[in-house]
Amino acid sequence: LCPPGVLPLCCRPPAWGRAPQQPPSPLLTPCRAFSNNMIQVELDESSGVAMMKFKSPPVNSLSLDFLTEFSISLEKLENDRACRGVIITSAVPKVFSAGLDITEMCGKSLEHYGEFWRAVQEFWLRLYGSNMVTVAAINGSSPAGGCLIALSCDYRIMAENPKFSIGLNETQLGIVAPFWFKDTFVNVVGQRIAERSLQLGSLHPAPEALQLGLVDELVPEEKILEKASAVMAKWLALPDHARQLTKSMMRKAVLDRLVAHREEDIKYFINFISKESIQKSLRMYMEMLKKKKG
Amino acid sequence: LCPPGVLPLCCRPPAWGRAPQQPPSPLLTPCRAFSNNMIQVELDESSGVAMMKFKSPPVNSLSLDFLTEFSISLEKLENDRACRGVIITSAVPKVFSAGLDITEMCGKSLEHYGEFWRAVQEFWLRLYGSNMVTVAAINGSSPAGGCLIALSCDYRIMAENPKFSIGLNETQLGIVAPFWFKDTFVNVVGQRIAERSLQLGSLHPAPEALQLGLVDELVPEEKILEKASAVMAKWLALPDHARQLTKSMMRKAVLDRLVAHREEDIKYFINFISKESIQKSLRMYMEMLKKKKG
Amino acid sequence: LCPPGVLPLCCRPPAWGRAPQQPPSPLLTPCRAFSNNMIQVELDESSGVAMMKFKSPPVNSLSLDFLTEFSISLEKLENDRACRGVIITSAVPKVFSAGLDITEMCGKSLEHYGEFWRAVQEFWLRLYGSNMVTVAAINGSSPAGGCLIALSCDYRIMAENPKFSIGLNETQLGIVAPFWFKDTFVNVVGQRIAERSLQLGSLHPAPEALQLGLVDELVPEEKILEKASAVMAKWLALPDHARQLTKSMMRKAVLDRLVAHREEDIKYFINFISKESIQKSLRMYMEMLKKKKG
Repeated sequence: LCPPGVLPLCCRPPAWGRAPQQPPSPLLTPCRAFSNNMIQVELDESSGVAMMKFKSPPVNSLSLDFLTEFSISLEKLENDRACRGVIITSAVPKVFSAGLDITEMCGKSLEHYGEFWRAVQEFWLRLYGSNMVTVAAINGSSPAGGCLIALSCDYRIMAENPKFSIGLNETQLGIVAPFWFKDTFVNVVGQRIAERSLQLGSLHPAPEALQLGLVDELVPEEKILEKASAVMAKWLALPDHARQLTKSMMRKAVLDRLVAHREEDIKYFINFISKESIQKSLRMYMEMLKKKKG
Repeated sequence: LCPPGVLPLCCRPPAWGRAPQQPPSPLLTPCRAFSNNMIQVELDESSGVAMMKFKSPPVNSLSLDFLTEFSISLEKLENDRACRGVIITSAVPKVFSAGLDITEMCGKSLEHYGEFWRAVQEFWLRLYGSNMVTVAAINGSSPAGGCLIALSCDYRIMAENPKFSIGLNETQLGIVAPFWFKDTFVNVVGQRIAERSLQLGSLHPAPEALQLGLVDELVPEEKILEKASAVMAKWLALPDHARQLTKSMMRKAVLDRLVAHREEDIKYFINFISKESIQKSLRMYMEMLKKKKG
Repeated sequence: LCPPGVLPLCCRPPAWGRAPQQPPSPLLTPCRAFSNNMIQVELDESSGVAMMKFKSPPVNSLSLDFLTEFSISLEKLENDRACRGVIITSAVPKVFSAGLDITEMCGKSLEHYGEFWRAVQEFWLRLYGSNMVTVAAINGSSPAGGCLIALSCDYRIMAENPKFSIGLNETQLGIVAPFWFKDTFVNVVGQRIAERSLQLGSLHPAPEALQLGLVDELVPEEKILEKASAVMAKWLALPDHARQLTKSMMRKAVLDRLVAHREEDIKYFINFISKESIQKSLRMYMEMLKKKKG
């Protein structure tokens, strides 16, 4: 992982600095395929495209362990010269990711809250600031942190099932999306739609998400990976160098804002989440989920 | 009223700080219903929703007296624990509000211009920064300052009568919308639509206003209050605490900008409006209005 | 031309400062019509509208000479009290402007790159910051710098020929649109559309450009000047004074950003464009163009 306060983008020699004739160093062991506990990654060397599948049932919750594995997987791919793009999807039926794991935010120590929040920041800095082309193949519901993953990619394809919904629904749980979730959202849908959707904590069914610009297109669920590969090929047709500099120019202001306020943001989160009123809200929400499931 | 330069949001203990079991202090006399000269306010204690009706014929002009009453009414509701949302509408047929009262800007002393402008800033800071849910039920035309009132709410419903129009038409009068009118407009419709509409001083008929995103929906005039209540109920279903923090996060940058430049903005207004060329434009415009009426 | 770092807007006494009764100074020779090598300009004194036609076959490339003539023409019109608006179009069939002349960026000295880039900045500062109403009549394809000219106007009308396309396609050439091209683009189409379009270097056919908001309307090619005149008349119906202040308010942040970083931007361009890898890309692109033509 990067040192705190350092943008992940900087951890890697820029792609455009590499002369194509220079062979990969024999001292590095480039990853080609790896699977850990919760995320399966396969890199197709011929296309330069990695497929990253969330496989942490029941709902791909973003626990501390999941987030750590996510950041490490992104870092491995980012440092792998054979990898130019990544498709992110779910191996769990009906859900892309249910977002931040509430059990990590409930009844734990202040230190734990801090460690957890740093991991949330870390994955977002890596994904939103990635030099790779990132395509989200949203094959299930995608609330809160799940939505943030999708928003942080370069392109969003969603299964056209109106039962699947996506949105930053934090207010429904009595909590507040942090400023950088908000900034990422505004960069996709604009200020007005973000203002309304965030206040209401809306979860938008796929067709509405398309209409709002929250996703770029809908396809039948069985075609989603095929479509994602086609989109990826289109984006990879551009020279990496120019595309990466352009992406960085578009996202720099929002990335820099978190980097500049990272420790402050962690302190704010610890203070907010450890309030008794917030803890009570979260416990009630978890009770409700258990009853729903049971 | 708040001290100058202090954000209205700060004048009130944040709603999320109140434990629900804590009874309202007996020393406070919470307002339940009040009517002054120009604005009628009724609070439904069961729903927590206040209905605020402009009743200053012929066109609900925003005079110094009207603005003062508006700010005081907003402050009362903001401080009333029983009030969580306010619906703003007009009791005058065919007009929501005609905007700033031109007679306050014509042939008066520099001191008067300054006092008037401070009152314009004050109402906007209170309304745009309100902790309450604010819904505009725009049941008539709404040029200039009338449009600003609508833009400052959380949600805009307009009567679907194409004879009713809405917009910031200042340039038509030879004057210029101040930067915070512009910022509020951009936050609703985006930079490009704002640039074109502000330069042309466009008044958009209701259907066009919907298409531009200047209002959120159109309903038959007789259903507008019913619809406003339904929308309000939806917004009030969210926990106040999380919704208010989210609203503040979305609007803070634009509110802070006026707070930081408030005195400068007043000086600029006084200097601009007292120019002989501007005074002449305004006199001509008033003559035109008189002839039209006569 | 203005001194470096000085906004063109400041070079001219503001229009609203001119009393209409004040006659033009006899010491100034007001331009009424002039034609140079590459741009033909005709001013209709009765309407106050200038027609500016690019006539530099084969594709109206923005060479150093062209840009210099463009800036001088804009300056003349800006200083001409009889001129209130300018329509910009092409006298060359099928192309509005092909954008920056690649031969100016390939195999030349560092000094030349610097001089060229300063001329690019200069024309944009003049056009984007112009006090005049500017209408683009886009009667042909308009990639890269050609698109920037269109984006910098107040209103864009495009011929409804789907063979004509428009966009900032720099990444396709392996180069990157500078931040102020990007800012201008974002001000027209918003952050998300800009992010996608810039990364892909998309050239949007006319109908798609309309849908994205990149142009304001499409008309049959033979009606484009007629339509431009009608639009111009609508914009000129507003008082210059108020319209100009409003325009300046909308565009100031983006103009100021380049003015503040002008020398830095030139150094960055020189350093970037003189890289051997970039020079190679540009040479390959020129070879491709030659083969296509041959």
